[in-house]
This record gives sequence, structure tokens and C-alpha cells, in this order.
Amino acid sequence: LPLSEKKLIARVRRNIGRLAGKRGLVTGIGDDCAVLRIPSGHETLVTTDFSLEGIHFRRDWHPPGVVGHRCLTRGLSDIAAMGGEPVAAFLSLALPAKLPQRWVDGFLEGFLELGRKSGVPLAGGDTAESPSGILADIVVVGSVPRGKAILRSGARVGDGIYVSGELGASAAVIDTLRRQPGKKLRAVDFPRHFYPRPRIELGRALREKGLATAMIDISDGLSTDLAHLCEESGVGARVEREMIPCAMIGDAGEAQLDFALHGGDDYELLFTAPPGKRVPAQIAGVPITQIGHITRGKNVVLITKGAGVLLEPRGWEHFQS
Amino acid sequence: LPLSEKKLIARVRRNIGRLAGKRGLVTGIGDDCAVLRIPSGHETLVTTDFSLEGIHFRRDWHPPGVVGHRCLTRGLSDIAAMGGEPVAAFLSLALPAKLPQRWVDGFLEGFLELGRKSGVPLAGGDTAESPSGILADIVVVGSVPRGKAILRSGARVGDGIYVSGELGASAAVIDTLRRQPGKKLRAVDFPRHFYPRPRIELGRALREKGLATAMIDISDGLSTDLAHLCEESGVGARVEREMIPCAMIGDAGEAQLDFALHGGDDYELLFTAPPGKRVPAQIAGVPITQIGHITRGKNVVLITKGAGVLLEPRGWEHFQS
Repeated sequence: LPLSEKKLIARVRRNIGRLAGKRGLVTGIGDDCAVLRIPSGHETLVTTDFSLEGIHFRRDWHPPGVVGHRCLTRGLSDIAAMGGEPVAAFLSLALPAKLPQRWVDGFLEGFLELGRKSGVPLAGGDTAESPSGILADIVVVGSVPRGKAILRSGARVGDGIYVSGELGASAAVIDTLRRQPGKKLRAVDFPRHFYPRPRIELGRALREKGLATAMIDISDGLSTDLAHLCEESGVGARVEREMIPCAMIGDAGEAQLDFALHGGDDYELLFTAPPGKRVPAQIAGVPITQIGHITRGKNVVLITKGAGVLLEPRGWEHFQS
Repeated sequence: LPLSEKKLIARVRRNIGRLAGKRGLVTGIGDDCAVLRIPSGHETLVTTDFSLEGIHFRRDWHPPGVVGHRCLTRGLSDIAAMGGEPVAAFLSLALPAKLPQRWVDGFLEGFLELGRKSGVPLAGGDTAESPSGILADIVVVGSVPRGKAILRSGARVGDGIYVSGELGASAAVIDTLRRQPGKKLRAVDFPRHFYPRPRIELGRALREKGLATAMIDISDGLSTDLAHLCEESGVGARVEREMIPCAMIGDAGEAQLDFALHGGDDYELLFTAPPGKRVPAQIAGVPITQIGHITRGKNVVLITKGAGVLLEPRGWEHFQS
């Protein structure tokens, strides 16, 4: 067992003590299972996501607190994309034997800080020694009123296609780091990459207002995630190049469009709404932009100055070269 | 993304198709989250467990189907230890780039076969490329009637201590494999190690009969798991050496007692019951043996021919040398 397991468990126990009971957690770490109370009339949501060193983060680019924050963001963003409320998080961590304890402490700081902000206790998990590299697997359990989860499969021909916030900032930061080996970027200066905020309040508001017919989070890149939504709904899409809200970070010029189209790890929400519904320009404090509409068929087409080309899913493949 | 991801997802989708709706699964893979319906008046159980190459299994000792079976067993056994019913499983798999597809197929065969036998659909998960070695993280979600989960913390002074089945068989097999490098054991000849059956029906029966005051599964070894139960309950224990049901596998003699006391991966249940309750010799088809009773204080004592020694938790540390 890794040296840090006892310390990890002690931290988790203290965290549980502060948050237990607040959001439906009956029993946390220290038993064979965590026991959660999902509100009656609600369904249970479950999502799992890896955060692997060399694939999803690099120790020379990402401070430990950033890795912890982004690890939990991946799970919370999936709950947001269903219009759900997070209830509890579970963390499985495989750590190399020689990893400094301060790295684990920093990781947990970042993880637990986002948990506190989001009202989500860390309710359990597992630890083990990793043969090489840091491996985290995050599980988030949430709830949503019965039958009200916003699925990927609900988009209908004619629906408008909307995104929250701006796209491409995270990929632009990675591009900068890749082009300038050894360069350090201060995490606070590039929060969209280092501290992405899962859009939980926005997802909940869209569900409560009954605005969205389908939804997905943009974790793999707009082109790939829109393709997923269209595939599950059995529809196509037209996206207007001029309407895509590109983030104003990184190199200027056309590259920005590629980051916005194919860059991953933005954790914004992509949703569709019926043509008759008025969608506010801002919901839960987040700007909302229409980027196109749902069409018959299966093709996703990008329109630039009136001319259309097929938009291939070329989403983010993280840091693999 | 690993080559096998598409194939994995296709397999999982087919599996979902067969099992969806049967046990509360509303939506499985193909959305941001799985949607589960927990029966009203029930609480939700969540458990996560790693199965790591070199720690929990070895490719030269364990065929892929065995690794898949044992991976799911780890999760189901935790649900059993709460007296719960499994609802759905989630599998996160990080695989080396060069792993043969037939290994993944074999792993899933073993995993899904136990899922079918246990009525538990594979409802989602994640896949990624592993920098070294196979890493699986299993999440099982279950349910239990509200307030009826059998915790580790309920043991009271005077309660009898009971175990199901026989102990030590799994450790005896590992000992044989370790002593005779290159030796292959046929999995069907040693089912307690290669195909352990999670005690779901037994756990449920103990909860329904109201027999158990506290319960834990024996995954780390009797000495360690009994120590956990005593610590959570704030009690001590006396265990009678002659009453421990040692499995009749492996070398003869005293070594067998060490396997039964400290060997992990047995996946039997350890529980306590009030002194006045009659505990049947067999429940849900599984033999039940009283091995001692709960005492005041914090010590766990092993009694051999009337003399007591402290039983230190020396539970299974898997295959780490």
C-alpha cells in the first residue's frame, strides 16, 4: 500500500465530517460502501472519468492543485450536462511509490476546494501503488428529478444549437506550452485551462426552465461532442463559423477557430432548444450563444461565408503525440 | 485513445441492450451519465475498487476471464457486505497500447458472465491508454432499504463473530504459484481463488432476517478485516483458533492457519450477531461458522488451546514483494 494512503484516508475522513448529511451522504469512508440518500422522486446519475498523467495532465505543466481541480471538474461537468445536482464524489488514486507527499496534499487541496465550492463531499474511493505515473479515476454520483435528465438523444430537426461561454481557451494554453518547452504559465492567469468551472448552475437552470431538448458537455471538443449529440439524436447539424464564440487567448488568427472547433477540456455546455423558445443571452451568469441549428440527415456542416464543408469530428486527443 | 475503445463500447452497448430496465437502469453508456432508478424508500450504495496488474493479478497467473471475474467480484462483495442489492456496474479500464484485443475480449467475457449471473448490467465507464500495465477500476452501485444497511460499526460486546464458507484458499493458491515459478494452475480446479463468488444472497438474507449487527467482507484477510470491524465498532474480539474454517487446499500443516488468518481475496462475509439469536449453520446455501465473540476494549486476541495471543492485522498485501 502506498505511504500516502493513511494520510489520504485521514484527510477524507475530516472532509466527510464537515460535509456529511448536508447533501444526502449517510455514511462515507470507513465502511464497505458509501450510503447515499437520493431525494424521493429523483433518479440517480453516475459518471466515471480517468485523469491520467501524460494523457490528461503533465506534472511539469500542471501544479498538483490544478490536477485535483480538473479531475473533479471532469465528473461534475458530466452531472451538469444532464441537468443534475451532484451528491457525492469518489476518488480512486494510483500513485507511484516515490511521489512526494506534498504532491498528494496539493492534489487533494485542489480537489477538495472545488468540492467545497460545489457542495460535493468526497465520500470514498480506493488507493493503490502505481507501477508508473499518477492515475486518478473520479466517480461522481448525482440526482435529477425522475424523467427530467437532459439526454444527448433529444435534439429534433429545426432546434437551435447553443453553447455556453467561449471555446478554445484550454487548447490555446496547451498549444503555447507545447510550442515553448520549459515555459511556465501561471495558473491564475489562464483560469479557463487550469481552473475550469463545471457549469452545474447553468445545467440545472436549463432543466428547470425546460429549455434544452438535448445536452452534452464539451470535454472532447465541439466537433466531436456535437457529432456525439447528433448521432444519439439521429440528426445532422449546420454550424455558422461566424457565430462560434472563440476565446481570446493564445495566438491570433485562424488557429483560434481550430482550438474552438476541436479543442477539448473547455467544460462548457452544448445544448439544443426548440425553434419557438426564446433562449436568454445569459443564463445563471454564463453567456449563451446560438451557433447553428439541427438538420435532417446525419451530416454536420460548417458554414463559412455561405459555403458549407463537412465538419469532421477531430476532437482533442489530449497530450498524446 | 486505445484501439479497443470502440470495440469495448460496442460490447457494452449490446450488454446494456439486454439488461436495461431490468434492474433500475434507465440510460446507460452513450450519454454524459448513466441514469439509475433506485427503488423508493431505499438508499444508494457506492463502492470503488482497483484491480491493478502486478498488485491484484498477474497476466502469467491469471487468464483474462479470471481477471474480469475477480474485478467485478471485488465490487459486488462490498455490496453484499452491506446487505445490499447490486444495481449497476461501471468499469474504467486503462490498457497498454500493445495489449492484444483477445485479452480485452477475454476480460470482458469473464466480467459480463458474472454480471449476468448476478443480474448486474455494465452501465458505463471510461477507457484510456495506460503507460504501463493494465489498470481497472470497478464501481458498483447498489441499493438497500432505508436505514437497513449493515455497517461495520454495529458490533456490541457479547455478540458472536461468524464467517461464511472457508478461509485461506485464495492465499494458498498464490503461495503455490509463488513457490513454483512457471507452474500453471487450471482455473476450474481452484475456483475459490480464480472464480470467487460474491456472497450477495447471503448478505441479503442476513439483512432480511435482521441477524447481523455488523458486517464486512474478507477481502484483505480475516485479521485485517476483523480489526477494521472492531475499530469502527469500538470493541475488541476473542477468536478461537480451533473454530476457524480453514480451506483444504495448498500445503498441509500450520501454514494453512496463516492463510486463513491473513490471506486476502476470499470474499467471504464476516459478521456479528447478538448472543440471544440462533444463527443457522447454513444460510442461502453457504455454511456459517462461529469463530469467537466480541469483547470490551480494543484488543483482538487469538485463543489456541486456552492460551491467548494478540492477533495483529497482517492482512494480504497482494503480490507486492
